[in-house]
Amino acid sequence: MPHICKIFNILASVVGFIMSEILKIKIPGQGLHMITSKIADVVSNSEVANGLCTIFVRHTSASLIIQENADPSARKDLENWLNRLVQENDPLYTHTLEGPDDMPAHIKSALTASSLSIPIMQGRLSLGTWQGIYLWEHRHAGGIRDVIVHVA
Amino acid sequence: MPHICKIFNILASVVGFIMSEILKIKIPGQGLHMITSKIADVVSNSEVANGLCTIFVRHTSASLIIQENADPSARKDLENWLNRLVQENDPLYTHTLEGPDDMPAHIKSALTASSLSIPIMQGRLSLGTWQGIYLWEHRHAGGIRDVIVHVA
Amino acid sequence: MPHICKIFNILASVVGFIMSEILKIKIPGQGLHMITSKIADVVSNSEVANGLCTIFVRHTSASLIIQENADPSARKDLENWLNRLVQENDPLYTHTLEGPDDMPAHIKSALTASSLSIPIMQGRLSLGTWQGIYLWEHRHAGGIRDVIVHVA
Repeated sequence: MPHICKIFNILASVVGFIMSEILKIKIPGQGLHMITSKIADVVSNSEVANGLCTIFVRHTSASLIIQENADPSARKDLENWLNRLVQENDPLYTHTLEGPDDMPAHIKSALTASSLSIPIMQGRLSLGTWQGIYLWEHRHAGGIRDVIVHVA
Repeated sequence: MPHICKIFNILASVVGFIMSEILKIKIPGQGLHMITSKIADVVSNSEVANGLCTIFVRHTSASLIIQENADPSARKDLENWLNRLVQENDPLYTHTLEGPDDMPAHIKSALTASSLSIPIMQGRLSLGTWQGIYLWEHRHAGGIRDVIVHVA
Repeated sequence: MPHICKIFNILASVVGFIMSEILKIKIPGQGLHMITSKIADVVSNSEVANGLCTIFVRHTSASLIIQENADPSARKDLENWLNRLVQENDPLYTHTLEGPDDMPAHIKSALTASSLSIPIMQGRLSLGTWQGIYLWEHRHAGGIRDVIVHVA
């Protein structure tokens, strides 16, 4: 592959129309945590007017989801419903060394999204009126989760 | 960030190798509605030969899905199966003000996709032979749904 | 749309900062098959330093998933759990001509991902330490599956 490729890519990264940022997000515990404004800030700083924002979670026991941003009861019901579907201490599990919430977390992560892409129009995430972006933590314990935001 | 970034991005949008279009899709009611040809038209109009088409639904009670495009019985079974898994009037729900189909719609949306990306090769969506793109409406009532198609 | 668009896109494909490759992956049968190194090879060959890698599966009875790459018991439990949720020979199915594993395969495909996007940073897939990329085959019989890797 010609060197012009590498040169273009480095140039593109430097001038900013391709950029990625790793966000370190502090999570208090299991549940849906709104991250819309953190993602919007990266998009705003990129100064990209028309493009695509892709979000990626670097874990297999947390996921990304777009949900209702208005009534918290919708998110609570969603979480309770999934907790009932994917139960802890299921006799089916053999992967139990990391605690009763570990295998359910992997299953929940498989049923939801590891990456999400949202078009950028006129410099802003083109979310619908009722859409918020959430990091869904599936383990009980809190901690730091890495989310990468790519804008191009 | 240097101004060259903004200039490049505006230029890129103008000459057309980054473009987004909002489709207003009229939906008669709950179910899977094929949108393959609408998406293919946007790709074709963009004149992008090699790239990526990303589709995003701006709602939390509808989703995007790639499914069998041949036999309608597969889509009907899929819908019936999900309706049995995610039932209306589940006593678990507290978010009930917007009707019995609202909370199931949010859950179904969480279990399926809000965004999908399909490579463009030789000017066309590189779908497999049996793949169709569907907008999956989870509410009973029909209406207009916004789907954004981003091509780059 | 001006011709400069087409010219730029062709140029971009030739010099390599937009590229797609179709991988033909031989699958022995139902289950999660690790494809991380195959995807990493495409990224490495593209020489893209900062960008986005999007993976797309061209089938409706197989899907893509990011899961724990360390302990195989996690993947086995995940598969067994989904096999219990989405059973063969469910009396609900009417789409049965292609065998008892066909309709469950379509449902499993709907509940998981057809496309995945992973940022590329410093020339590498920016996966978390415990993340592996898997092609999840939902049919019993093995065969060749097409996965497209797009790098930009």
